[in-house]
Amino acid sequence: MITLLTDFGTTDPYVGIMKGVITQIHPHVPIVDLTHGIPPQDIAAARFCLRSAYRHFPKGSVHVAVVDPGVGSQRRAVAIQIEEGWLVGPDNGLFGGVLQTSAVLAAVELTNSRYWYTDQPSRTFHGRDLFAPVGAYLAKGVGLSVLGTSISIESLIDLPIPGWTKTDAGFCGSIQYIDHFGNLVTTIPADCVQNHRWKIKIPQASADSLEIPGCLTFSDQQRGEWVALIGSDGWVEIGINQGNAQAQLNLSYGDPVAVILE
Amino acid sequence: MITLLTDFGTTDPYVGIMKGVITQIHPHVPIVDLTHGIPPQDIAAARFCLRSAYRHFPKGSVHVAVVDPGVGSQRRAVAIQIEEGWLVGPDNGLFGGVLQTSAVLAAVELTNSRYWYTDQPSRTFHGRDLFAPVGAYLAKGVGLSVLGTSISIESLIDLPIPGWTKTDAGFCGSIQYIDHFGNLVTTIPADCVQNHRWKIKIPQASADSLEIPGCLTFSDQQRGEWVALIGSDGWVEIGINQGNAQAQLNLSYGDPVAVILE
Amino acid sequence: MITLLTDFGTTDPYVGIMKGVITQIHPHVPIVDLTHGIPPQDIAAARFCLRSAYRHFPKGSVHVAVVDPGVGSQRRAVAIQIEEGWLVGPDNGLFGGVLQTSAVLAAVELTNSRYWYTDQPSRTFHGRDLFAPVGAYLAKGVGLSVLGTSISIESLIDLPIPGWTKTDAGFCGSIQYIDHFGNLVTTIPADCVQNHRWKIKIPQASADSLEIPGCLTFSDQQRGEWVALIGSDGWVEIGINQGNAQAQLNLSYGDPVAVILE
Repeated sequence: MITLLTDFGTTDPYVGIMKGVITQIHPHVPIVDLTHGIPPQDIAAARFCLRSAYRHFPKGSVHVAVVDPGVGSQRRAVAIQIEEGWLVGPDNGLFGGVLQTSAVLAAVELTNSRYWYTDQPSRTFHGRDLFAPVGAYLAKGVGLSVLGTSISIESLIDLPIPGWTKTDAGFCGSIQYIDHFGNLVTTIPADCVQNHRWKIKIPQASADSLEIPGCLTFSDQQRGEWVALIGSDGWVEIGINQGNAQAQLNLSYGDPVAVILE
Repeated sequence: MITLLTDFGTTDPYVGIMKGVITQIHPHVPIVDLTHGIPPQDIAAARFCLRSAYRHFPKGSVHVAVVDPGVGSQRRAVAIQIEEGWLVGPDNGLFGGVLQTSAVLAAVELTNSRYWYTDQPSRTFHGRDLFAPVGAYLAKGVGLSVLGTSISIESLIDLPIPGWTKTDAGFCGSIQYIDHFGNLVTTIPADCVQNHRWKIKIPQASADSLEIPGCLTFSDQQRGEWVALIGSDGWVEIGINQGNAQAQLNLSYGDPVAVILE
Repeated sequence: MITLLTDFGTTDPYVGIMKGVITQIHPHVPIVDLTHGIPPQDIAAARFCLRSAYRHFPKGSVHVAVVDPGVGSQRRAVAIQIEEGWLVGPDNGLFGGVLQTSAVLAAVELTNSRYWYTDQPSRTFHGRDLFAPVGAYLAKGVGLSVLGTSISIESLIDLPIPGWTKTDAGFCGSIQYIDHFGNLVTTIPADCVQNHRWKIKIPQASADSLEIPGCLTFSDQQRGEWVALIGSDGWVEIGINQGNAQAQLNLSYGDPVAVILE
């Protein structure tokens, strides 16, 4: 199985073309779209989504991820073997979330043009010319080592997920992702709040006086009321029951958030 | 075959994760996206889309639908056997459109955690933890009865499609769906206008003087002109030839519409 | 394999319904979405995307394309055999880009209702009633000739891609497509600029003084700087490194662009 994650959107034919290239090489491989709605060039959002998703796929899956502001430059194109399968894409930090949570077994730079779509790849669409075909060959059983030059795992570019710190009152973290519903995912892990009574404060002008109670589920609050809870991916999240928290607060990735233990 | 209908959008990895869970259980099952663009928590829009689509799939298809404002609350998670296949999702009225047009054979509440993704499901993502795995097991041939406690068909929550009434001049109904093209789908069925000359009036301030002629097809009017016709799903629809009716009128679900027979 | 390209969007169930119809006829055929984000009724954008994509699919693929402002009128519904596979859709110029770059072998008008979804097709959704089922039958091996009346290749409606002209200073062309990243694809082919030093001028009020250097790749310029380059589809393109050119210029399809050779 191959998954695709890009910032290509779905209005242009780019994603379809990648699938065409894959099916030329490996006609019946199942292809799943993780998302193509990563904001253009937003490596951090891509890292979050890929980390969140990869564990839920069958062992041996190939994850092709292309958010690639440096396409055509000297940035490396890589394939990485992890315990659960393979990663294929640019070496720009995109895989940071996975590398921090999985055992990395080996990595290569994609230097062997025999496994490219063309030996004269474009300067702007390595999704079509390098990453889709390499993903297809890996899914077909081609070994990692023939795809190019071995590189050290330590040399892979990491992009650590921003952390959190202990405070007198609890913990301080930040917003790391905002989803389609307007739910705000923080960098504070579930462990910090489990088995406590807790609330959230957002030290931002427009939200300064807002205190959001820690709950178990959205329905613990009335429709339209603020809720903080442990999200399905194991992070503290902030939302509004049947509403859009981001539409109220207009926060950005990196904005600070405090957990107060009671 | 499994179809998916949600309000998850496609910018986040949620839909991809559901497909990962499905393929872990049933690797080669075809998965079709009905839509993930239901407006957040809009059960009525989901009911309309599912009703419109399910009849066009092969017998035995499993339709997993997750528009679930009550996730984590006491609302029931259910699987329903209908003549054409199975429905899986929250018991909140989402399936009302199908239940009114199909023969319902049996229903269970999803109480058997053996068929869940985890025996400690999250409080916010039953799409991943209950509905995707149950859909996969049904598609794989697992019997409905092992999935949980049998419940009476009558106890399933219905959400009737708003009706229409006979008037002196014709019929009165309302808007039940507005599509991507801006076409306005009413609650008035084709039968009411077939074999008649008819027109539409919209008793809303901004459209009060608008009289829209009943036509056979968009091309019966010039480009940019108003058209009323019988849509592909059997309802009276209002549109503009090569234009966007909703952008002109800005109506909402439930706004009244009158058919005048001539 | 079947590909789908439409202007149906993905918020409504229309595309899912087409896939349901296809799988009723040919259950295990792989279906790839080229895009459903063509602007409503924009035949020129559809022609561009289909031309750009079809060459990247396995030989024998069936491309079903439905951007169909004339649905229900007298416009012909057609299937076309090309060297690389088949095209199915309305005869309205949509296939112009493919017809100009591929060898066309035969064409039929879809007059044989035995291969329709219903012998009383709707007046508004031939994607479901004609094109999806015909695509499925072609993918299943049904011969072109049984689908309807043979028509001459010359009679197919063409919609030529706007051209370019030689000028004293270089070449003059126009914008033919604007992608999700805001990159502006011109009608000027790579040949015109290869092995030259060149720049772009845009003779539009808001961009009149803008001179954009011809580069090899986005990264040749700093982040936020203008770039002109040969895009992955072989056309001269205009963009901003990690930015959105269209958001700055707000051009339209057809707006003029000049290449200046140095």
